[in-house]
Amino acid sequence: MQLGMVGLGRMGGNMVRRLLDRGIECVVHDSHAASRERAADMGARPCATLPELIGTLARPRAVWLMVPAAVVDAVLAELVPLLDENDLVIDGGNSSHHGDIRRARELAGRGLRYMDVGTSGGVAGLERGYCLMVGGDRADFDRLAPVFEALAPGAGAAQATAGRSRLTTADRGYLHCGPHGAGHFVKMIHNGIEYGMMAAYAEGLNILRHAGIGRHDREQDAETTPLRHPEHYQYDFDIAEITEVWRRGSVVSSWLLDLTARALQDDQGLAGYSGHVSDSGEGRWALAAAVDQGVPAPVLSAALFSRFESRGNADYANRILSAMRHQFGGHVEKKKGGPST
Amino acid sequence: MQLGMVGLGRMGGNMVRRLLDRGIECVVHDSHAASRERAADMGARPCATLPELIGTLARPRAVWLMVPAAVVDAVLAELVPLLDENDLVIDGGNSSHHGDIRRARELAGRGLRYMDVGTSGGVAGLERGYCLMVGGDRADFDRLAPVFEALAPGAGAAQATAGRSRLTTADRGYLHCGPHGAGHFVKMIHNGIEYGMMAAYAEGLNILRHAGIGRHDREQDAETTPLRHPEHYQYDFDIAEITEVWRRGSVVSSWLLDLTARALQDDQGLAGYSGHVSDSGEGRWALAAAVDQGVPAPVLSAALFSRFESRGNADYANRILSAMRHQFGGHVEKKKGGPST
Amino acid sequence: MQLGMVGLGRMGGNMVRRLLDRGIECVVHDSHAASRERAADMGARPCATLPELIGTLARPRAVWLMVPAAVVDAVLAELVPLLDENDLVIDGGNSSHHGDIRRARELAGRGLRYMDVGTSGGVAGLERGYCLMVGGDRADFDRLAPVFEALAPGAGAAQATAGRSRLTTADRGYLHCGPHGAGHFVKMIHNGIEYGMMAAYAEGLNILRHAGIGRHDREQDAETTPLRHPEHYQYDFDIAEITEVWRRGSVVSSWLLDLTARALQDDQGLAGYSGHVSDSGEGRWALAAAVDQGVPAPVLSAALFSRFESRGNADYANRILSAMRHQFGGHVEKKKGGPST
Amino acid sequence: MQLGMVGLGRMGGNMVRRLLDRGIECVVHDSHAASRERAADMGARPCATLPELIGTLARPRAVWLMVPAAVVDAVLAELVPLLDENDLVIDGGNSSHHGDIRRARELAGRGLRYMDVGTSGGVAGLERGYCLMVGGDRADFDRLAPVFEALAPGAGAAQATAGRSRLTTADRGYLHCGPHGAGHFVKMIHNGIEYGMMAAYAEGLNILRHAGIGRHDREQDAETTPLRHPEHYQYDFDIAEITEVWRRGSVVSSWLLDLTARALQDDQGLAGYSGHVSDSGEGRWALAAAVDQGVPAPVLSAALFSRFESRGNADYANRILSAMRHQFGGHVEKKKGGPST
Repeated sequence: MQLGMVGLGRMGGNMVRRLLDRGIECVVHDSHAASRERAADMGARPCATLPELIGTLARPRAVWLMVPAAVVDAVLAELVPLLDENDLVIDGGNSSHHGDIRRARELAGRGLRYMDVGTSGGVAGLERGYCLMVGGDRADFDRLAPVFEALAPGAGAAQATAGRSRLTTADRGYLHCGPHGAGHFVKMIHNGIEYGMMAAYAEGLNILRHAGIGRHDREQDAETTPLRHPEHYQYDFDIAEITEVWRRGSVVSSWLLDLTARALQDDQGLAGYSGHVSDSGEGRWALAAAVDQGVPAPVLSAALFSRFESRGNADYANRILSAMRHQFGGHVEKKKGGPST
Repeated sequence: MQLGMVGLGRMGGNMVRRLLDRGIECVVHDSHAASRERAADMGARPCATLPELIGTLARPRAVWLMVPAAVVDAVLAELVPLLDENDLVIDGGNSSHHGDIRRARELAGRGLRYMDVGTSGGVAGLERGYCLMVGGDRADFDRLAPVFEALAPGAGAAQATAGRSRLTTADRGYLHCGPHGAGHFVKMIHNGIEYGMMAAYAEGLNILRHAGIGRHDREQDAETTPLRHPEHYQYDFDIAEITEVWRRGSVVSSWLLDLTARALQDDQGLAGYSGHVSDSGEGRWALAAAVDQGVPAPVLSAALFSRFESRGNADYANRILSAMRHQFGGHVEKKKGGPST
Repeated sequence: MQLGMVGLGRMGGNMVRRLLDRGIECVVHDSHAASRERAADMGARPCATLPELIGTLARPRAVWLMVPAAVVDAVLAELVPLLDENDLVIDGGNSSHHGDIRRARELAGRGLRYMDVGTSGGVAGLERGYCLMVGGDRADFDRLAPVFEALAPGAGAAQATAGRSRLTTADRGYLHCGPHGAGHFVKMIHNGIEYGMMAAYAEGLNILRHAGIGRHDREQDAETTPLRHPEHYQYDFDIAEITEVWRRGSVVSSWLLDLTARALQDDQGLAGYSGHVSDSGEGRWALAAAVDQGVPAPVLSAALFSRFESRGNADYANRILSAMRHQFGGHVEKKKGGPST
Repeated sequence: MQLGMVGLGRMGGNMVRRLLDRGIECVVHDSHAASRERAADMGARPCATLPELIGTLARPRAVWLMVPAAVVDAVLAELVPLLDENDLVIDGGNSSHHGDIRRARELAGRGLRYMDVGTSGGVAGLERGYCLMVGGDRADFDRLAPVFEALAPGAGAAQATAGRSRLTTADRGYLHCGPHGAGHFVKMIHNGIEYGMMAAYAEGLNILRHAGIGRHDREQDAETTPLRHPEHYQYDFDIAEITEVWRRGSVVSSWLLDLTARALQDDQGLAGYSGHVSDSGEGRWALAAAVDQGVPAPVLSAALFSRFESRGNADYANRILSAMRHQFGGHVEKKKGGPST
């Protein structure tokens, strides 16, 4: 089995390594020479240009794109004219399913095949395997099965679910979710859930972090809420130890918790981070889907909005609030950096 | 009718002026001499100490406290020993109804009377009148009716509600809401609603403020969501004009909107504010009440949490999120201050 | 000034009446004969078909559509072929600004003019006037000024904002907000704010409604949270009176509060309503805009999601929660209709 | 080592079994004879009354309460007079840390010792072990270490965290979190996080469940939002398979997901559940703590409120919304059970 891979960043580079380790022949391209060289060192066949990549691959070709969602269309604009009938393009990145539906239709008009694959696993995927959510035609899914088998974690990754009558590819870590866009739709929801889970941990740990607030004196003015029972907030928790104990036997144990515990080992204050949290699109699109459907998603939206706020995008709204308070109550803003409770 | 007033800040000072203008005799105390002098200039009888105040008032006395919630108990500790049977203490500030229930019981044990009054109106109350929500015994409410009539806006403040069969004190702007604590309970909910309304305007105007985002170039990397349709975000709105037009005939017209329009006249960018938004307790307590009752309050809580976030209280939670993202995806935080969308 | 009006429902019918009262000649169409007859009785010229309407209007024509957002494109498909160069189509309904941008482009291609008008005011607009938010070319806005003057509330509708140096059309209740789509964009945000305000009141009043929860006995089992302080929840509030008193002097006074007070006069329990709350699109689109922009809108989203939940759209999510609880805790669902706290 | 256990329900009964299996002698009491008999069959020493239990235990005694939070104080009222100096009472249930602080003080006044233990693990704890979060004096924690070792999952339950320099009891599944109340504080936050995670999954799966909404016709009226792009919602997902594939290699893998996958095996529609979701207190208290601290917790609150709404507790708020909509727009509620989108 031979695969063309375009994009050798954090994700694409590791995927190539895992594919090579499992006997899949990889012909690869990235605009950065250093990335191509690293892939060549692993045993991939590097190509400096897309035409070279296409010229090297045997027909019918399978070309997997692992590039930022924002540049998929630009890559396709260069790639598509080079392809022949029945060549298969796989978008394995973080695209919106809207784009998949459009692209599948456009490529079909030229006799080309398209498949969308939501790929989860991050930098750990190299060792742990990638969870693959696939959208497109069943025949294309079957054609690429050896690639999915190589990338996915495999049967040993989790205990079989009790009462499961029939094992499927899902039990090995990859799934044909439905027609074009289905893979990225499921990945989009996966990431929405991920945002919600991350925020749940972050909020909880933040409350633990402030559990000693009753030990400090508070200002006594009309701008500061009195704390009704300071005796209830006298704790000084070891948050690293708490995440560690939760990893064993608790209801909230998860892989994200494992990672959190690891991140807190060195410095539970996380002084190395500024808390400027990006979002890469799927969380937004999951919320947009909920809204289109008329389905409530209060947790997913709260998680997303916390990220927007962390980046300062509520600043004007906050100034509006201060201006209103000044108008009706003559309130003057307290300085940032003061005791803030 | 004679009233003792303790606390001559933004609220208490204006209330004394309104009371004097309407023929209520005011004996007043504040720890700041300048505040006492201002009140004396209006025609109030200033007292430098609480004992002097109590010595000056005719029995049975009525003493209205207009002090920060955090110091009510300290003032009462000094005041109560000076009082005689059937003297009435009114807490007109922003106390929690928990405290009212306790204080009413404690004072009753000494033969004293207690009443809680939620007072809304802010600095505009001097001219516009104050909306008064009263908790306590009906007899005490009746005893203080002349004071309420003087402070409240009166019948002309709003058109009579269609279909209203029987006019009450509510139609003049004050209401006996129920037993001890009822006044501050209703004021607490009032403020919860106020927070929700303020946040609704602030969020909406913030979206208007960002409606030109499609005109800017975006970074194209895995940390930045591509904007699917930049052509939909090409606007440059005049937000002051928009709040102005909404004041006439729209569903969102309100007194808060009037204030917002005024605040935006000078500088719709509100550069004079930092967006560090305080909360004075009632919003928190409204949420705590909802939680105790098992009643959902997603809007009130979202409004409150936005204020907490504006003060930096989510920082640790955000750093947790960044640390998780670094662990699973190798993501590195983008710098604050960069293009943030 | 002559105007063609298509759609004579709750909004369109009243608008025609207001226009006629102020001297605007109205040529009207609706598929329902009864609606046409009502308009004829007011003095409008009724047309049974769109071709008849177009044939009756003098050139250059101005045709105002007041139809559900879902049928605008169908109406335009029939209307556009009938129009001549420089005829102006106004979409005054609740369309998305996405559609405006597309339609303006399409109509411009045929030499036709397009304008979008967000219209707020509801059934009260007949008397109170309509707040009009307009998007499109300035020349078209000026051309239709007499219509806007007739529909809008006019200068007396609100006190002039203090410190306002220069009065504009906004002070009379209509505004040119920007290019195509700007009117519906601003109306979309207006409705998002409206949802937030409505939810703020609804949540607050719901907490008041449950303020007597401490008077009831609670079940004592592992499925029911004990109420830590029942003595704090012993109230029986008159919610109609409370909304009434808030109308005078309080920070939360608004037109929506006026309406709420009126609705509560007859039956503060609102037994005539089931609580199945629709949304008509703008709230959703406001949220989608916030998400596209990367701007937090936690209150607007919470308000929207409450409506979705009121219609049962969280049912599957709730069953998932029950199934999880059964799996990890052996919890069995309590029956609906039982004591629910 | 000998332990007294009061309360042999789902949790207490299984814990006794696990303790007996690991050599801890158990003297037990429950008001239900059948529960006592089951425990006796396992090898525990059953006592029909608390005095019998106390009479049977060797001094200094250790009595673990595993009863609903609402009855802890009633049990203690009977138990405390029976105890002798240095006897230790452990509250292992779902109490609030407020109660712990008070009880520890009260018991200390009588020379008794108190410890709070947050116990996570549910019905699976019997096999998987329980995660134990302990508050109280270090000496009492050490005294009960054999009990904790027996109940906790032990070192093999999770891989050691990379970079962890020093192993502690946390690596075996139990932790001394701090002074009195610290155990239930940490458990409270644990449950708040649990609620958030559960809601994240539930919301995400609910969106997947509605992903075929574009295949249905929609009503076209002013009460129904048009779906802008029905072609994006044509999917029919197998949700059981999707949860299964996510268990392998994805970022959202967790023990809760394992349970969800199991629950969906038989019927992905979950028709056996009504979606009436209880909450047992900790989620509420976690939110109350956040509010006291001034710390935002939008996800935890959204998760909690969804449960409140699932039980019908927003009904009055929803009727308020419908009444407002009727007032301003003449909107009439659509029937429940109709097409709801």
